[in-house]
Formats: sequence, structure tokens, C-alpha cells
Amino acid sequence: MNFLEERIVKDGVVKPGNVLKVDSFLNHQMDVKLFDKMGEEFAKRFEKKKINKILTIEASGIGIASVVALHFDVPVVFAKKTQSINLDGDMYTASVESFTHKNINNVIVSKKFLTKDDHVLIIDDFLANGCALMGLIQIVNAAHATVEGIGIAIEKGFQSGGHIIRNLGYQLESLAIIDSMDDVTGEIKFKDPNETM
Amino acid sequence: MNFLEERIVKDGVVKPGNVLKVDSFLNHQMDVKLFDKMGEEFAKRFEKKKINKILTIEASGIGIASVVALHFDVPVVFAKKTQSINLDGDMYTASVESFTHKNINNVIVSKKFLTKDDHVLIIDDFLANGCALMGLIQIVNAAHATVEGIGIAIEKGFQSGGHIIRNLGYQLESLAIIDSMDDVTGEIKFKDPNETM
Repeated sequence: MNFLEERIVKDGVVKPGNVLKVDSFLNHQMDVKLFDKMGEEFAKRFEKKKINKILTIEASGIGIASVVALHFDVPVVFAKKTQSINLDGDMYTASVESFTHKNINNVIVSKKFLTKDDHVLIIDDFLANGCALMGLIQIVNAAHATVEGIGIAIEKGFQSGGHIIRNLGYQLESLAIIDSMDDVTGEIKFKDPNETM
Repeated sequence: MNFLEERIVKDGVVKPGNVLKVDSFLNHQMDVKLFDKMGEEFAKRFEKKKINKILTIEASGIGIASVVALHFDVPVVFAKKTQSINLDGDMYTASVESFTHKNINNVIVSKKFLTKDDHVLIIDDFLANGCALMGLIQIVNAAHATVEGIGIAIEKGFQSGGHIIRNLGYQLESLAIIDSMDDVTGEIKFKDPNETM
């Protein structure tokens, strides 16, 4: 097990309905030292890619993306879930269905901050059905920018998102891929990353 | 002018209605190297305080708080604006009116992540009327934790929030305090931090 898998086993809680609660270190309380290790690992996995921008989605992607970005020495742009009166000018938009919240959000990115010259690493905390990622990819494509890679903290390997996105040819790196989890025993099994394709 | 004031003059845009757009480096696209400098500066200003947790509010506080937290070697907890089905158990709640979005949000923090033993540094990107900060202070007080200090990137010195919070006795450190701004000329004037009391 790697450092993130170990932490998930230690502090993650499996709930009915395939819900994995990692709110003690990932998406409510945030262990920024863990994020720093994640940044180190993503920097290794994407070292051959020329990346000049990180794109994520509010809210829980922002903390990870910000700390990871220090390892790439690039700015972060986060897609916003509601239109702000402070966001004028043209925006790229996509619709994203949330597995957690069971709702649909419009996400927006200002056209000022994503252009055809951008080589983008997409970062997010979770990958399940892939809706959030597909929305972000759609936004990068609309900007005629390039998706150089996708870095995910925790992928639910038993849902279809990872499979779909890898089949589209993207370099998708998930630091922990859950093969199965049991809310009765609390057991969590991980996939061997070499078997994800 | 310090590093943040210089950046505001360089890249901030003054809009009618006392709106300062800093979305190119602070709250949509985020310059994480700038956040790193802010962390260094907050670490100096709060070096006498025993801080074991940083509290912020989604969404635009999260990036700053996460990078700042690396300088304090503490976890971040962010107050969430909507109730998630992933957040079970008891929560502290507060109502917060947004100056930017002209709406009222309930913000919540899980009771698991804020206790009487916590010595909290509150971090946020903006301080205007102080509603968001008062909500966070209310949550810390409800947990019988201690507010050790408050670190803000940009304070609108011509609105009442900073005055109210300093009068309550909190150590409030704003890295840039705007005295006035003019949406016709684009001119931004800063307050001398020694005159904020």
C-alpha cells in the first residue's frame, strides 16, 4: 500500500451506498502535509509532461490542487459552481452531476484564464462516475487548450469513470483505486494500479 | 507597498459598486506562489500564538488556507456552504450573508473537527462587512475552541468589518487594507497598517 492507501485504511469510513468518508483528512478537514506528498507523487508521474496550469473544481478539489501546484510551479484555476456577479465577461460552462450531492451544477471558468496555449493538469479529490472530470475536460476542449493529464486522489474503481476516461486516451493517475469496500466489515480493497487499463 | 499591495495595483481591477476584481491571482485563478509568501508573512505575524488548526470557508478561502497551513504545519478545516449527505453527525452552523453574491448561506463545520482543545487561526481571502468572519468566529465559540488570530488577504478598510472585529479584541492581520478605490481612474489607495486601530 502507498501512503494514501494506508491513510484511507487508517482513517476512512465505509458507509452504506458505496460512500467512503474521508472527511477527517481530505475534504472537510484537510491534511495539507498529505497533499504535499500527493504533489510530490504527481510531479513524478507527470514529469514528462509540459504543464503550465492546474484546473480543479470547487470546493474540495481546491485544497489539493493548490498544494500540488507548488510542486509544478504553476497557477491553479478552479471551476466555480455558481455564477458570481464578480465574474464578468465570457465563460466556459459545463453541466456536472454530483454523486455526493445528487444534484446538477453548472460549472464555469472565465475565458480569460484558459486559452489555446494552456497545457493543463486536471486535479480532483474523487473520481466515481466521472461527471465532474468530463465537465472539466469539456471546458479545456472548449478553450482549445490541451489536457496533459489528470491526477486524482481516490478513484472508485468499481464505478465507470476511470475506465471511460482512460479509454479516451488520457493519462489518468489515481493515487488510490478502490476495488471494493464493505460497510459492514469496514474492509477496503485496492486495485493494483498496473491493472487499471 | 508590500508584495500583496503591489500585486493588487498591478492586476486588480476596480469595478463600480466598490467591487475589486482580483480573480486573476486570488479567487478564480490562484497564484500559489503568492499564497506561499502570504503564509510566510502570517507565520511571522502570529509567531507568538500557539495554533493547531486553520479554519476557513469555501470556496475561495480554501486555496490560501491550504498553502498557509504548510507554514504552520497544521490541518485546515473549511466551513461548508451546503449540507452534504456525506456529513453525518452533529455540526456547528452559522448564517453568513455574502457581499459578493447577495445571498445568505448556512455554513457548517462538523463537531468532530473543532473541539475545546483547538487553537484556531481563521484565514480568508476578503474582509468587507465581516459577515463571513463573524460566522466563523461564532462556530469556533460554539465549539469552545479559541480564536488565536485572523489572517486576511484583502480588507476593504472603508467597510465596517475590520473595525468591528478589532474592537472585539481579536488579533486581525490583513495583508492589504484598501482605504479607497476609484472605478473611473482605477486608483487604489491603501491604509497604513499602523493606523488600523
